[in-house]
Amino acid sequence: MSTFRSVVLGDDGVRLLDQRRLPHEIVYRVYADPDAMAGAIRDMVVRGAPAIGAAAAYALAHAARTMDAAALIAAARVLAAARPTAVNLAWAIDRMVRRLELDGPGGLGDEADHIAAEDVATNLAIAEHGQALVPDGATVIHHCNTGSLATIDYGTALGILRVAHERGKRIHVFLDETRPRLQGAALSAWELAQLGVPHTVIVDGASGLVMSRRAITCCLVGCDRVAANGDVANKIGTYNLALVARAHGVPFYVAAPRSTIDLATARGADIEIEERSPDEVTQLGGIAIAPAGTPVFNPAFDVTPAELVTAIITEHGVLRPPFGPALARLGG
Amino acid sequence: MSTFRSVVLGDDGVRLLDQRRLPHEIVYRVYADPDAMAGAIRDMVVRGAPAIGAAAAYALAHAARTMDAAALIAAARVLAAARPTAVNLAWAIDRMVRRLELDGPGGLGDEADHIAAEDVATNLAIAEHGQALVPDGATVIHHCNTGSLATIDYGTALGILRVAHERGKRIHVFLDETRPRLQGAALSAWELAQLGVPHTVIVDGASGLVMSRRAITCCLVGCDRVAANGDVANKIGTYNLALVARAHGVPFYVAAPRSTIDLATARGADIEIEERSPDEVTQLGGIAIAPAGTPVFNPAFDVTPAELVTAIITEHGVLRPPFGPALARLGG
Repeated sequence: MSTFRSVVLGDDGVRLLDQRRLPHEIVYRVYADPDAMAGAIRDMVVRGAPAIGAAAAYALAHAARTMDAAALIAAARVLAAARPTAVNLAWAIDRMVRRLELDGPGGLGDEADHIAAEDVATNLAIAEHGQALVPDGATVIHHCNTGSLATIDYGTALGILRVAHERGKRIHVFLDETRPRLQGAALSAWELAQLGVPHTVIVDGASGLVMSRRAITCCLVGCDRVAANGDVANKIGTYNLALVARAHGVPFYVAAPRSTIDLATARGADIEIEERSPDEVTQLGGIAIAPAGTPVFNPAFDVTPAELVTAIITEHGVLRPPFGPALARLGG
Repeated sequence: MSTFRSVVLGDDGVRLLDQRRLPHEIVYRVYADPDAMAGAIRDMVVRGAPAIGAAAAYALAHAARTMDAAALIAAARVLAAARPTAVNLAWAIDRMVRRLELDGPGGLGDEADHIAAEDVATNLAIAEHGQALVPDGATVIHHCNTGSLATIDYGTALGILRVAHERGKRIHVFLDETRPRLQGAALSAWELAQLGVPHTVIVDGASGLVMSRRAITCCLVGCDRVAANGDVANKIGTYNLALVARAHGVPFYVAAPRSTIDLATARGADIEIEERSPDEVTQLGGIAIAPAGTPVFNPAFDVTPAELVTAIITEHGVLRPPFGPALARLGG
């Protein structure tokens, strides 16, 4: 088990490990009402599709101690709008609203605990199914952060690598730094260092050179939403990595809890891509790295078409193309 | 003409515009001896294949005022070793050494002036030949910095875009920020802002999304070395961009002065790829962005195979595949 939790329910509110401060310091912040939590999700105090779903659920569970049902429904709407691309957020909030309708505010603590516990179980199942794809001696390229910080524990793609390491496989992980927010350099490198998993950080543009000069076993990433046809929305840069992998014949695997599968979205082009502040690109730690006022396009996610995905690793097993029928059988 | 020069010979030494300080401040530093200039090239006070060639030539020209031929030959060796990948550096130093052998130290000022003047003429010729590839209304993706800062004036790839703009073509340039050193965000954005060329900065991982959602006319990059078969060494991330361009059917153009063509190198795999300090990746403006001690692989360049290059734009015309015979005709 990891020594940190990114989302914890306390008596005074939901405690979030502030991921904007890592790796420099470990700071927890308490969010006592859903509006504040929506702000924390927008500002990326907590990020990662499963983690923001659980954080929103816990925010509603805490609010249920004092709010009535009507107020909770309104709060749920605010939380659902905090970030648009990851479907887990809407999925977790839907579950909370259904439970509210069934059992009233008193059921929400239990439902949030279930969402969190299921996340850990889901990740362990994904990790189990993923072992067949990560043999002893594997060298893997990973994008963004998909570890304990992005979930309740273990993580999705990084969870597979953590379990591989725990079972004594000798693996090496190249971590894309993942501009603009550097989740790979700041968060994944921090997690893998704590776990003792050998790793090397590279800039996002170096994956092609790495694949041309090293034998890479596979690329392994998480996702924020899987469309019904198998198109995958994930952190910006994922699509470029998938194209580079295809050019080198390197398998490209996506770890996806069922909660990220969105059968209501036919294909990737239908997924709303969140655009974030230019400041994420032009400033770092408050320091300007581009001329003042430089125009910026800062999409937070991109879409990797299903044809570039070798397999989707879910808690129910490893899906292979054609993904449409396999995803439909799983349900969304 | 631009309002700044990155390399200027003065009475007290060679003045370099410190590119590490841009876009924050315009600071010139004076380098009075070749060892100091070699350090400035290594530390990237000046960068860009043509600019470092001219800077080294001027350092020898200045040294020739006080050094004898034997000392100048030794200084030339130190300068040539400052950075290994760009061939212009070795090319410029070879020219200076040949002139030294012919005319003694007294000829070096003239030779350095010739190298600098030829660079401007070369860039204007490249810009002229490149116009056919950048029509009115073009939207172009550019990587790294290839402008006045990377040369004596105008630049190579950015020179083409500058001339297109000067001729009234309505163009828009997406600038890869170009991690780790951010030459796109810090330098190219600064140059294009001064010139009034419309531009938008993106992270390197966003080029795929941009190509999937926008009509992109072409990618246009410079290079540090062209092998005899047309393989191109350029700033890390160029190869990934070329793969993304191929997947989208976007033409990929390389602007290459003849001085970057190295017929003595058969193919890209034979080009030495400089590895630079992990600090370039793990720190920004002195701030750590990864855990202390994080292992890093930081190659400064990558190799784009000739098969991904649509055309090579030289001062003698636009070369099309197969590049081997076309490059051989040009000489190197």
